[in-house]
Amino acid sequence: MERYSNLCAEARQTELKQVRDLLEDWKARGLKLNMARGKPGAAQLDLVSDILTILHDPKQCMVDGMDARNYGELSGLPCARKYWADMLGCQPEETFVGGSASLTLMYDTISKAYTHGLLHSPQPWCKLERVKFLCPCPGYDRHFKITESFGAELIAIPMTPTGPDMDMVEELVKDPAVKGIWCVPKYSNPDGIIYSDETITRMASMKTAAPDFTVMWDNAYCVHEFDGPFQDFQDILTIARECGNPDRFFEYASTSKITLPGAGISVMASSVDNIQYMQKLLGVQLISYDKVNQLRHVLFLKDRAHTLEVMQRHAAVLGPKFRKVLELLDRELAPRGLGTWQKPKGGYFVSYFAPEGTAKRTLELAKEAGVVMTAAGATYPYGKDPRDSNIRIAPSLPPVEELEQAMEIFCLCVRQAALEKLLAQ
Amino acid sequence: MERYSNLCAEARQTELKQVRDLLEDWKARGLKLNMARGKPGAAQLDLVSDILTILHDPKQCMVDGMDARNYGELSGLPCARKYWADMLGCQPEETFVGGSASLTLMYDTISKAYTHGLLHSPQPWCKLERVKFLCPCPGYDRHFKITESFGAELIAIPMTPTGPDMDMVEELVKDPAVKGIWCVPKYSNPDGIIYSDETITRMASMKTAAPDFTVMWDNAYCVHEFDGPFQDFQDILTIARECGNPDRFFEYASTSKITLPGAGISVMASSVDNIQYMQKLLGVQLISYDKVNQLRHVLFLKDRAHTLEVMQRHAAVLGPKFRKVLELLDRELAPRGLGTWQKPKGGYFVSYFAPEGTAKRTLELAKEAGVVMTAAGATYPYGKDPRDSNIRIAPSLPPVEELEQAMEIFCLCVRQAALEKLLAQ
Repeated sequence: MERYSNLCAEARQTELKQVRDLLEDWKARGLKLNMARGKPGAAQLDLVSDILTILHDPKQCMVDGMDARNYGELSGLPCARKYWADMLGCQPEETFVGGSASLTLMYDTISKAYTHGLLHSPQPWCKLERVKFLCPCPGYDRHFKITESFGAELIAIPMTPTGPDMDMVEELVKDPAVKGIWCVPKYSNPDGIIYSDETITRMASMKTAAPDFTVMWDNAYCVHEFDGPFQDFQDILTIARECGNPDRFFEYASTSKITLPGAGISVMASSVDNIQYMQKLLGVQLISYDKVNQLRHVLFLKDRAHTLEVMQRHAAVLGPKFRKVLELLDRELAPRGLGTWQKPKGGYFVSYFAPEGTAKRTLELAKEAGVVMTAAGATYPYGKDPRDSNIRIAPSLPPVEELEQAMEIFCLCVRQAALEKLLAQ
Repeated sequence: MERYSNLCAEARQTELKQVRDLLEDWKARGLKLNMARGKPGAAQLDLVSDILTILHDPKQCMVDGMDARNYGELSGLPCARKYWADMLGCQPEETFVGGSASLTLMYDTISKAYTHGLLHSPQPWCKLERVKFLCPCPGYDRHFKITESFGAELIAIPMTPTGPDMDMVEELVKDPAVKGIWCVPKYSNPDGIIYSDETITRMASMKTAAPDFTVMWDNAYCVHEFDGPFQDFQDILTIARECGNPDRFFEYASTSKITLPGAGISVMASSVDNIQYMQKLLGVQLISYDKVNQLRHVLFLKDRAHTLEVMQRHAAVLGPKFRKVLELLDRELAPRGLGTWQKPKGGYFVSYFAPEGTAKRTLELAKEAGVVMTAAGATYPYGKDPRDSNIRIAPSLPPVEELEQAMEIFCLCVRQAALEKLLAQ
């Protein structure tokens, strides 16, 4: 195989015809394959079926001196707060246990910042002429959308192999209108990058002009290795305290990809002062999240050690899928000099950078051939990738055999889009 | 027994001494009794224990062409939407099924009105100089608190035996700053009043100056009879449509007092246009509420007919408690001419109007004697009852024998406070 950049025009034409023919064959099979979202596959859901029945006797609901079935305990069942503290390395009183979606807790934080202000806000953000928010890219579209929906100006920050470009971040936070940053510190969505210790320390210690500058620390993949041993991480709340900015971080996590995506529990962790401040505001909107489901989770997952055992079973399902994706990229695209990608060991995505200006066309071709993927540009603020290059591959949902087909098709689409671009130049 | 108003000063002094002595005896027993919140008692929770195990096999999760365990279906599992449509008499597409708290859906509606505006809002409410909200009184403190927390000006509307004073409501809605009203149409909290057909028609057909005037229709007690047969109710969405104001009402309900208060499911029902508009906003904050718990509820409650059977079992527990409260009020306070009250047949409260200016003192005395009740004033905007009279009695939590003790103490406290006031005049 030859690098496409080295091929002469004629060879490119021949190659394009071949690729088109192969794609036509795939199209004729009328497949419907989906690599759009980080949705666990059915085999993963079946791993945790015991959670459906582990809480079967009302007597089990008498815990922590209360009846989990009844109203009350806004910040969550004490044993659930203890569970999350063990998972994240923080203290139970630094946690607030939510419902099935950590996204909702993130939204609530930003929403409250707008309508009421955060602990150190001089005024609610809705009273300000402009609010800017930093968005490391590629990143998670649902994060960006939350701040966008409130009218914040989103500023793209390039990702590096050690996390967001901190030189740029430190420069931008001198602007008091810059109110926060979205972060996925472990196995970043979609690159799968783990922030380095230096990045984390700089994030915790940098001087910010806004007194209420907030790091939205989405630890979505805190125990989500699919390859190799568990990579431990430091408690961000301790680091923040040691750096003299105890109220800067709001950390989030959930069991959506540990137990059931549609029926898990979530957590928000922050300084005790922040949690108490947020509780006052959250107390207006609810009496408590579902404590029976919190209890079900504590009974099933027990603690961090046992959760890591559950995660190994997930890894046994997910590992082969990610290896298949990387294998096909290595086999089909690397030798042709098409694109670059990280090789993550955890998280839910492979972040593929197609030759500049070909991502949209690639996904258009994939769609025609029956493969649905995350929209091109979705990993950038406002859905606009200035280089039209990044494509988020989500291998978790399809079984390996379908995934292999989807990736075969995907690689052909990358090749066709690249050839079309080369020939048009 | 003599009416206190007819007693001479000397007789009042004698009576006061007697009452004080009796209360001292109670105090000496060091009881701790709670009639503060509409919390179901343990016997009610035990009625529905089968809900813990009814969903026990992952195969049951394949419903409506999807896997309830996985991500997706923002507006709720189709069978759960169908369940709520049957309960409320509306259409499935007019429903949005939520998590364990309907309060959260109410908060979300008001919160979105402030940050983004509702379907017919010329602009978000946070951009307006003032927003006024109508609060029928006595009413539910958590309702009032939601609008108060966003800075709305709360206007008290007197309750009548047929619902809010509609003459006053129709007059006030001529002001474009009046954006909505809180309503509990069946067994109103706390009076237990059922709105008359005329009240409902006037609410649906009145002309409002605000194009986005919204009725927050909290049908919390829609099937919650504790005495006598089910009282059917008309679908408010149909009435609204027929009156030419299809988007005026947001209706809410939940299973908090049907299955488990800490682990139920909730619903928001409104016109299809409203639900679609809200979905766009809610889609930013979550992927879906807990669909496994929605399915658990559909399997357990089945439909309205079966839900009414479950409610009869609740009535068997609650009925004796309410009868005990009314019995003691009739026996201890009526003959002495102390206060007035409704005799509800459903809902969760008895609304007692103490002699003017004595509610706070009564509850202070009750607290000293070990009986905790909803704070005086809580049923009015800003927690301020201008007549210092209304007291919300919540008989559901204590067992009957404890409730009887609590009510004995309560009646003594009413008597003492009334005598103190009469003697001070």
